[in-house]
Amino acid sequence: MLQRTLPHVDDAYSGVLAPVEQVILTMSADPSFPQSFSFDPADPVFRAHEGGKIEVVATKALRGREDLALLYTPGVADVCRAIAGDPSLAARYTARGNTVAIVTDGTAVLGLGDIGPLAALPVMEGKAVLFKHFAGVDAVPVCLDSGTVEELVETIVRLAPSFGGINLEDISAPRCFEIERQLRERLDIPVFHDDQHGTAIVVLAALINAASVVDKDLPALRVVVQGAGAAGAAVSTILVRAGIRDVVVCDSRGIISPMRTDLVEHKHRLAATTNPRGLSGSLKAALVDADVFIGVSGGKVAEQDIAAMAPRAIIFALANPDPEVDPLVAGRHAEVIATGRSDFPNQINNVLAFPGLFRGAFDSGAAQITEAMKLAAARAIASLVAEPTALEIVPSVFDQRVAPTVAAAVAALS
Amino acid sequence: MLQRTLPHVDDAYSGVLAPVEQVILTMSADPSFPQSFSFDPADPVFRAHEGGKIEVVATKALRGREDLALLYTPGVADVCRAIAGDPSLAARYTARGNTVAIVTDGTAVLGLGDIGPLAALPVMEGKAVLFKHFAGVDAVPVCLDSGTVEELVETIVRLAPSFGGINLEDISAPRCFEIERQLRERLDIPVFHDDQHGTAIVVLAALINAASVVDKDLPALRVVVQGAGAAGAAVSTILVRAGIRDVVVCDSRGIISPMRTDLVEHKHRLAATTNPRGLSGSLKAALVDADVFIGVSGGKVAEQDIAAMAPRAIIFALANPDPEVDPLVAGRHAEVIATGRSDFPNQINNVLAFPGLFRGAFDSGAAQITEAMKLAAARAIASLVAEPTALEIVPSVFDQRVAPTVAAAVAALS
Repeated sequence: MLQRTLPHVDDAYSGVLAPVEQVILTMSADPSFPQSFSFDPADPVFRAHEGGKIEVVATKALRGREDLALLYTPGVADVCRAIAGDPSLAARYTARGNTVAIVTDGTAVLGLGDIGPLAALPVMEGKAVLFKHFAGVDAVPVCLDSGTVEELVETIVRLAPSFGGINLEDISAPRCFEIERQLRERLDIPVFHDDQHGTAIVVLAALINAASVVDKDLPALRVVVQGAGAAGAAVSTILVRAGIRDVVVCDSRGIISPMRTDLVEHKHRLAATTNPRGLSGSLKAALVDADVFIGVSGGKVAEQDIAAMAPRAIIFALANPDPEVDPLVAGRHAEVIATGRSDFPNQINNVLAFPGLFRGAFDSGAAQITEAMKLAAARAIASLVAEPTALEIVPSVFDQRVAPTVAAAVAALS
Repeated sequence: MLQRTLPHVDDAYSGVLAPVEQVILTMSADPSFPQSFSFDPADPVFRAHEGGKIEVVATKALRGREDLALLYTPGVADVCRAIAGDPSLAARYTARGNTVAIVTDGTAVLGLGDIGPLAALPVMEGKAVLFKHFAGVDAVPVCLDSGTVEELVETIVRLAPSFGGINLEDISAPRCFEIERQLRERLDIPVFHDDQHGTAIVVLAALINAASVVDKDLPALRVVVQGAGAAGAAVSTILVRAGIRDVVVCDSRGIISPMRTDLVEHKHRLAATTNPRGLSGSLKAALVDADVFIGVSGGKVAEQDIAAMAPRAIIFALANPDPEVDPLVAGRHAEVIATGRSDFPNQINNVLAFPGLFRGAFDSGAAQITEAMKLAAARAIASLVAEPTALEIVPSVFDQRVAPTVAAAVAALS
């Protein structure tokens, strides 16, 4: 069975033009990766999905004509007029201020690639379940027929009035960068691409605690990030912002540096902000004496390359279902290991971040998710593990303190 | 207080270019129409709207890691792959097949006119409450920043994959006609402009029973429709389709006929399909010996004009809060009177139609709402009044038989 837990495999790893299919083919070529898939309605997964996973219900009772006159016409006209006169009242008198649109075009869904908006819907419904369960946020799947960056931006801007926030999801790189940038510029509500920033926040949280486990200073860590798609770019960026001075990013062609002549725009930005020692060459070269390896690509890493890392190494191999480094192999060379899988310790799961993040933004009426909020969210998540160990660097996704703690940290900054 | 119950006042009555403001000004100029509006949070209407009226909730329990693995990753990937392979499975394994988007651009909201998408949201939330309450349909408000017909159509087509149906709402005429037409052509899900067809269905239902009360043959009725906007055009069209041979439509400039040189496109169509006697002139001329007057314009009608109608006349004066003919005045000249108001007998309310209509379309997997379905829905509503009287020509909106009966009639035709 093809499995993918958050964070998402970078779809731009194996080339400059987001060839997610190559990653999938790579994964599929792995003999440990089952090829077969058959639709079986009796399977527990399909039984759990009968009729979908969400519904829209009234929060106010409709008992008769009197309620109808309050909740609908004629009464509702007063509320419309009040909002027309003072748009800020929409936050109080509609569900908008607690409602996020989960917007995708289905071009980079889980590890499945460009399966389209309809096939992406079960993921978005699942995410809506998580938003509600963990943070009381109402979330509406909005699966868009794909198009150009401009077409998607225009569509999302036009539908934004119903929503208090936009959670972008599973949109292929590098389009996702420009779509998010334009939306942040044009909208006055939080816009957050979870595949980028959700992953980045949880990776930073985990790394804060992993560094303490191996007794190394966070800013002094030498970090190698494998993958320069949505997740890789955002992870690298947040680590730099968190003060880590030596971050080296690799895509499928090797270390990203200003020397490279084949870089698309977002990789140019990475080249300018990472790789302070001016390394060039392959991932293998980058890993020599590295303290941290973060895989968000799905590409496999040879054991001998990992073996060249510094003592007390940290390995986050986040591809699903097959981590870039097998956890058993990683264990021979690293002290702290994290994956995206729920069947190993230290699962890096975006669910730790996005519900609380939007909860905090909504509670405080924030007009955007700032870089400071992302850092604060990461620190809040890290803080919930009182005494980090090699087997516990992040809290459980079912730790009920997570969303409120993240929400409070985010709300305090708006 | 400005009151408006469904159906909506035609926004194109007083001119050819949908000057809804003129209608509102006309209404506001009426001394019986209170001008004052003050926002009072303690008012029951505002208290009922605190926090909005809808929420999105999970239909499946999320009790722990096992449920997470079924409802989200890794399990959900199987459902995505199944739908990618067979899109028809989305109806079974997502909420899409039970979910309608209530789409507006806020250009013709209730009697309030172009108040914008944000101020329209309370109406759309209220409508979502009604969809769920009366027919178990999940409805999502989608309030769009307005734009050209082409921009709105492109947006709605692009966001359609998440939804099993599109309920257009409160979009100004004549744009609404072209938007609906293009969407019906491009989408394979039901598209239904409620201000047009919901109103038309309930008016036809009421007229079927009113005709029996006054003991006249439906096809032989002489009907005058005042208003040629969204509701007026659709009412006129459905009456013709229902077999009524003599329908005369008036806008603010008088009787619509092929002689008129000032007609926009949808009025040209009306000119071609109505007014078989080739009348021209004013509403006053049309009303001479008419059996039925249907006001969907908000424009006032003089008592002497009503007095010229045939014996045993029927008057539907549907503008809110002020009917085109005061019901007390109408009572001097007509035997059956209906309004859009809940405080008079015979309230013509779209709630009788749209929930059951979408229920039936969803239950049967209909790809569109056909003309035959609209007629069947009207007959189904009419059939629920076993013995129509002058004071009861439509069932109560709280009659629990309505939605299932409409749904069954609609589903039988797909």
